[in-house]
Amino acid sequence: MGSKHVRLHATTGAWMPGDPVGSRKFFEFSNDRPFMVESGGHLTNPVIAYETFGTLNADKSNAVLILHAWTGDSHVSGPAGDGHPTEGWWHAVVDRGGFLDTDKWFVVCPNVIGGCQGSTGPASINPDTGKHYGSSFPVVTIRDMVRSQALLSDHLGIEKWHSVIGGSMGGMQALEWAVMFPHRVASVAPIATCLQSTAQQIGWGHIGRIAIREDPNFNGGDYYELDAGPDHGLAVARQIAQVTFRSDNLFSEKFGRNLQRGNTHPQGMAMWDRFEIESYLDHHGEVLVSRFDANSYLAIGKAMELHDIARGRGGLKNAVARVKCPTLAIGIETDMLYPDYQEKQIYNLLADAGTSVDYVNIDTQHGHDGFLLESVQVGRALAAFIDRV
Amino acid sequence: MGSKHVRLHATTGAWMPGDPVGSRKFFEFSNDRPFMVESGGHLTNPVIAYETFGTLNADKSNAVLILHAWTGDSHVSGPAGDGHPTEGWWHAVVDRGGFLDTDKWFVVCPNVIGGCQGSTGPASINPDTGKHYGSSFPVVTIRDMVRSQALLSDHLGIEKWHSVIGGSMGGMQALEWAVMFPHRVASVAPIATCLQSTAQQIGWGHIGRIAIREDPNFNGGDYYELDAGPDHGLAVARQIAQVTFRSDNLFSEKFGRNLQRGNTHPQGMAMWDRFEIESYLDHHGEVLVSRFDANSYLAIGKAMELHDIARGRGGLKNAVARVKCPTLAIGIETDMLYPDYQEKQIYNLLADAGTSVDYVNIDTQHGHDGFLLESVQVGRALAAFIDRV
Repeated sequence: MGSKHVRLHATTGAWMPGDPVGSRKFFEFSNDRPFMVESGGHLTNPVIAYETFGTLNADKSNAVLILHAWTGDSHVSGPAGDGHPTEGWWHAVVDRGGFLDTDKWFVVCPNVIGGCQGSTGPASINPDTGKHYGSSFPVVTIRDMVRSQALLSDHLGIEKWHSVIGGSMGGMQALEWAVMFPHRVASVAPIATCLQSTAQQIGWGHIGRIAIREDPNFNGGDYYELDAGPDHGLAVARQIAQVTFRSDNLFSEKFGRNLQRGNTHPQGMAMWDRFEIESYLDHHGEVLVSRFDANSYLAIGKAMELHDIARGRGGLKNAVARVKCPTLAIGIETDMLYPDYQEKQIYNLLADAGTSVDYVNIDTQHGHDGFLLESVQVGRALAAFIDRV
Repeated sequence: MGSKHVRLHATTGAWMPGDPVGSRKFFEFSNDRPFMVESGGHLTNPVIAYETFGTLNADKSNAVLILHAWTGDSHVSGPAGDGHPTEGWWHAVVDRGGFLDTDKWFVVCPNVIGGCQGSTGPASINPDTGKHYGSSFPVVTIRDMVRSQALLSDHLGIEKWHSVIGGSMGGMQALEWAVMFPHRVASVAPIATCLQSTAQQIGWGHIGRIAIREDPNFNGGDYYELDAGPDHGLAVARQIAQVTFRSDNLFSEKFGRNLQRGNTHPQGMAMWDRFEIESYLDHHGEVLVSRFDANSYLAIGKAMELHDIARGRGGLKNAVARVKCPTLAIGIETDMLYPDYQEKQIYNLLADAGTSVDYVNIDTQHGHDGFLLESVQVGRALAAFIDRV
């Protein structure tokens, strides 16, 4: 195990093999054949880390699948603690007595394959070679993630989810669930997401990707045995994402033109003096570097860019026509990364196809991250939806 | 002269000392004291490269000052040729018989200090040391640029400009001209610009800046004597800017989800396979690296982020109240970098102060770069304005 791993583990609590397990459970696809992925590669005996909250009822009708976004994990709810440096990422939405009430619903949240929070990803040891996957980790798609989650559903004995819910990349998975396994989902709620990633979204992803690639410590993706990983490149990538996750208005309100303390010039007129927005972005870069693996960042980013509900299905309308369950499309007007015309497209195409669909707008200055931060608005909309369907 | 220079010169035509002069003229501030800049530093005998088009009339009343944006230069009009790898950047607006008709107007376009197209910048030799400025080049501000341009105006015998016009950073300079030298401007036209850079604009600038800083070939800014400069970092910075210069709609129309040729997987499902938008961004990064100096990119970027018409003037309203001349505010609804609420703020504050001001919206899918690309709309609005005032 390289020092990169040790550092991640020791300083941050990012989950790595050997780390405290916390509330995680593990499902290994121990089939007699490898798990083939859409790109043509395969994974041998991959593992999905997942957590469950609440109790599956006798007729297995209260199961809700929640799917995380880019750098999320299985810890959707619950306190910080062993193996979980922070409280669940949607704790204010999913909790005992909460909007998604775990006294009522059996909530399951898996970490995606390709990730670095317990599920098999580029940092994992490839059983075929005994070495970290690194650059040899195959490209995985949203559909691969969903197929692996279907195997997990079999393992858990859940034939049909009462609802499949997710924001951003989680919403892409929710949509693919409804298209790939219409008989296994009673409802879906895709939030702040899209049917197909756009050129601009791919463009943002591309720039972060080359920033990581050009970091001399990236070493083509095989840095696990080296003294350092591509921290600078990953920080640049994350800072780009962080701007797109929020909004112009929010930054103006929160930071304006305030200068950071500790500058060398009273008006910040030295090249490396900083405004507050700059130290905020630096901080977000550093935090991600300390808790996330660069290769997983690349793998998951690529999966999002390859997301296209229409691929191989005779176009968008035909793909959407496969969705048979009630759908709640939740959009965010201030979202600059997944502009709300994309959620409205989900609504419109489903409505045109005669599928039951509702649209809710989240009123927020937070932009894309409003799906995480506006827990009352999002939670209320979701609770009303899953209680009704 | 380091190899970095030689490479820039030999392969690209970017102007460097010793390069073909083309239509450039040079003005050296050969005062008995150095040119002090707002940050507290100074430049000894700095030079402004500039070009002129048309003829100054007898009463010197037909002079129009045009100010360039981030990576622009003095070649606002005229053909490609010696020292000018491309046609003037606003040739479709400024030309004999054009919208800004150089048979009628005497157009002057200077390269900003801090730049790398003939004016003194970080790549220049510091007369005090005999070496490239590099990291020792002082931070310059938009106000410093304008003060240097006022000295150029004295040198040319122009007491009052009929109009001062610019887009983006050029517009920041036009606004500062109207505030700093109200008696020397008869009209101004700030296009796709702002009174104060916002936190989001500073954030974008910051990310590009750290991408350059973390390039191992940056060497703290002193790379002119080395074999290579921070090309990768500069390319990342430029790609970020390029996305903000255009629009989501434009990219969707132009590229959509088209794959670039030459990929290894038929559906682009390999980590380094590219969509067309990606090769477009790579291309824009490479082109800038081949024609522009990274330290100038940093210097000019910092000047834009420090732009604040209110600084030291008792607030925004008091600063705007200094503007006495008719103003044409030109905004672009699809501009994601300088959203049109910023041009509307220019209009509203001037109107509130009782200053003559008009607002024109450019109807375009091009986003911020619409000020360069929509030459008919922009040219018509400018021509009508400067003929009238």
